[in-house]
Amino acid sequence: MADPRFFLKPHPLTLAQIAGRIGAELRAPEDGEYLVHDVAALDVAGDAQLSFLDNKKYKDQFTQTKAAACIVHPDMVGYAPEGVRLLLSLSPYKAYALAAQAFYPEQRPEPSISKFSTIHPDAKIGQDVSIGDFVTIGANVEIGNGVWIESHVAVGSGVILGDGVRVGNHATLSHCIIGNGTRIYPGVRIGQDGFGFAIDPSGFVKVPQLGRVMIGDHVEIGANTTIDRGASGDTVIGSGSWIDNLVQIGHNVKIGRGCILVAQVGVAGSTELGDFVVLAGQVGVAGHLKIGSMAKVAAQSGVTKDIPAREEWMGYPAMPMKRYLRQSVYLSKVIDKRREGQ
Amino acid sequence: MADPRFFLKPHPLTLAQIAGRIGAELRAPEDGEYLVHDVAALDVAGDAQLSFLDNKKYKDQFTQTKAAACIVHPDMVGYAPEGVRLLLSLSPYKAYALAAQAFYPEQRPEPSISKFSTIHPDAKIGQDVSIGDFVTIGANVEIGNGVWIESHVAVGSGVILGDGVRVGNHATLSHCIIGNGTRIYPGVRIGQDGFGFAIDPSGFVKVPQLGRVMIGDHVEIGANTTIDRGASGDTVIGSGSWIDNLVQIGHNVKIGRGCILVAQVGVAGSTELGDFVVLAGQVGVAGHLKIGSMAKVAAQSGVTKDIPAREEWMGYPAMPMKRYLRQSVYLSKVIDKRREGQ
Amino acid sequence: MADPRFFLKPHPLTLAQIAGRIGAELRAPEDGEYLVHDVAALDVAGDAQLSFLDNKKYKDQFTQTKAAACIVHPDMVGYAPEGVRLLLSLSPYKAYALAAQAFYPEQRPEPSISKFSTIHPDAKIGQDVSIGDFVTIGANVEIGNGVWIESHVAVGSGVILGDGVRVGNHATLSHCIIGNGTRIYPGVRIGQDGFGFAIDPSGFVKVPQLGRVMIGDHVEIGANTTIDRGASGDTVIGSGSWIDNLVQIGHNVKIGRGCILVAQVGVAGSTELGDFVVLAGQVGVAGHLKIGSMAKVAAQSGVTKDIPAREEWMGYPAMPMKRYLRQSVYLSKVIDKRREGQ
Repeated sequence: MADPRFFLKPHPLTLAQIAGRIGAELRAPEDGEYLVHDVAALDVAGDAQLSFLDNKKYKDQFTQTKAAACIVHPDMVGYAPEGVRLLLSLSPYKAYALAAQAFYPEQRPEPSISKFSTIHPDAKIGQDVSIGDFVTIGANVEIGNGVWIESHVAVGSGVILGDGVRVGNHATLSHCIIGNGTRIYPGVRIGQDGFGFAIDPSGFVKVPQLGRVMIGDHVEIGANTTIDRGASGDTVIGSGSWIDNLVQIGHNVKIGRGCILVAQVGVAGSTELGDFVVLAGQVGVAGHLKIGSMAKVAAQSGVTKDIPAREEWMGYPAMPMKRYLRQSVYLSKVIDKRREGQ
Repeated sequence: MADPRFFLKPHPLTLAQIAGRIGAELRAPEDGEYLVHDVAALDVAGDAQLSFLDNKKYKDQFTQTKAAACIVHPDMVGYAPEGVRLLLSLSPYKAYALAAQAFYPEQRPEPSISKFSTIHPDAKIGQDVSIGDFVTIGANVEIGNGVWIESHVAVGSGVILGDGVRVGNHATLSHCIIGNGTRIYPGVRIGQDGFGFAIDPSGFVKVPQLGRVMIGDHVEIGANTTIDRGASGDTVIGSGSWIDNLVQIGHNVKIGRGCILVAQVGVAGSTELGDFVVLAGQVGVAGHLKIGSMAKVAAQSGVTKDIPAREEWMGYPAMPMKRYLRQSVYLSKVIDKRREGQ
Repeated sequence: MADPRFFLKPHPLTLAQIAGRIGAELRAPEDGEYLVHDVAALDVAGDAQLSFLDNKKYKDQFTQTKAAACIVHPDMVGYAPEGVRLLLSLSPYKAYALAAQAFYPEQRPEPSISKFSTIHPDAKIGQDVSIGDFVTIGANVEIGNGVWIESHVAVGSGVILGDGVRVGNHATLSHCIIGNGTRIYPGVRIGQDGFGFAIDPSGFVKVPQLGRVMIGDHVEIGANTTIDRGASGDTVIGSGSWIDNLVQIGHNVKIGRGCILVAQVGVAGSTELGDFVVLAGQVGVAGHLKIGSMAKVAAQSGVTKDIPAREEWMGYPAMPMKRYLRQSVYLSKVIDKRREGQ
């Protein structure tokens, strides 16, 4: 069970209630009234807990689990140990995520505005808003309904936050418009000047950064990530994209819908990502490139060229995955031969 | 036009005023009285706006632009569409930067000190200083004239900020002396202990970090960048250097004048960079190295050796660019041959 | 001498006092009463200062030093210039670290709790605690004796801080339990949700992150580093481990005792490190791997496989160091040959 220091004790649910919530089918409808109290991993779940099997690597744990109930793919039914109640789903991990949400809904504080915050009188604050201690909110800010702003956040003049947005502690927001349901994690910096200057023998000349950051709906922006505003035109993060911690997004970058950028990725200025692009951890993408929709780039790759849609690339500099693997295999064989020859 | 939520509406300027500000020459002196109201990109500018052509890649946009006026290199005059007023400059991008600064000067708040900040009575505060909400300023701090400290900043005891310095929200400054006109972005950490310890079987023994961070004039330090203070002696950032977001500078690093460190670069302890060195994004430089003036290192390279002045290096580990490219071409050919042979 | 703006002037100590503190032996016992006032590097130390020689690279500086006294390995006694008093140690760098600690003990503020902080009435605060301005402390937090919390820190509900913990400015702590003597640097983010979601055609489904972050004793966590809490089970950092700046630790990562993670390292979810593992700067480690105790990974390597205990690996993707070097040498020779052949 999740530590009650940090999580509310979940309310028990019947398997029928859960099946309804997660879109799964009870293998034995008579199990519908059985009450479970929590979710847990296969190897630790007991007779009050619901577990799941998604990755077949854990099949052995499944065959020995003592869980009261388990979410599984219909193909795995044959491996189920006796006594475990089954909820059948074609997407067991997603079904588990929904079940865990049912037991552990996001804990939001009661709406209230800390008296230790400074809110400009021209700011418009929606209904049911929660604002923590030591928050500053500038002129003409617009905050939607149900927004939760944690402590020590700075919201600069003119910023718009859509309904249900959550902003983590110590985040800095300026020159940005943020869609509904988007979540900003602690320490994120959005809207500062991009890295723009003209070179001159007497020193660099700053190029005014005159754009904004436009963030869609239901986006996640991880801790300590930085997103610079556009130089002319906007930096854009499409709806439903997930960005992990310590990611750098340069000015005028456009990111499509449903993209995944894993931790420590860097995307240089004016590069455009289509929809559902995946950049694995520590990938770097040079500026002014186009990465097609559904393209995937392996961790630590350095992208210096456009990538067509749906391709998988890897390497430094990045190349199509097959070509990269061919090169790796070649080098590996040469080395093995030379070692034998010694 | 820049979004008026975030930017003040610019005042119109005559082309003669602009030419004077940016050091350009009006091709037709009779255009000098023409008023323009803003800057804009070639493809969106209209009859009230000034644009520019720098990168020849955009020549086609230039030949079709509807801009009232355009800053161009004298060589490009022949491609100008009829009716566009021309400002001739040998450095069109720099001239554009200056023009954009004329329309959009940095917006500084009126000088004032928030009553929601805590300022040690021994701190010395200059003239025309602006200090935001929830700022802490320690004992013996010295703050020059015209300094702007945004909200939630922590300035530790003894820190000195030169005239005109701007410190972004949530920055942490300790053990540092910062020159005139330098700008620190949100979330920067300057002056904390470097990563120094002696190894001992019973655990690591911390080595006290007894130096400072000395930052020159007109330096830019990007969001969430970290600069550790010296272990003995100082960490130094030379005047006019630009450091992007999420960069790590280890203890006792010395960076010369006019260097450019792009996002997510890491420079390990005691390494020295000459003047005008360029480290592209995600480069890592090992400790105790010397990188000569005007050297350039390509993105994601891993530098493990000294680099002579003016050389371009690339790779993991980094090597002179020509050598690196020869290696890449070789591998590429071998792979192509093997594919044909299959 | 360390700048008195930032450091207290040290009290002089006799060489006998120092020898006792650092576990060294005075070569000439009659030097025991000699007073030194400070530590300094070999090339700048004078007749009031103690220096040390550890790296033989600096032997020439040693032979010419004007230091009053010097900590050296017994093997180096023959190179000592006349007049320099010697303290013999088998670990001169560690001995120097202890001597520097004797002159420059950590400066902690007097215990006091800022009236500009908000502390939940249910929080338990130990003895001799110092809490800076604009700190927020949530419900049921437990803070041990001698804890120092710098300004602008957010401590979420239920967090436990052991005795002597120091938390740097602007850190965010939630869902975590932190051991004795551990130090958190400015801007660290601990305990936020990990990057966990199930993929669904209609958008990603968030997987509730139900674990904690458990941090041992005497750990150091560098500036702007991010440590996500477990998804189910905990993220764990073992006692005595040192983590540098801008490091990313994913959910459910387990790090053993005495590990060293240099700046900008990223460790993906569920990976486990044994004890005394070293990951050099900018290393990336994929998820669900096991890195054996005392393994070392060279800077910028990308680890995609388990690494056995005590091995040294390098490369992208990482491989055993010997194999990597063989590959490098091979490529280097081929290129040299081809250049000659041109």
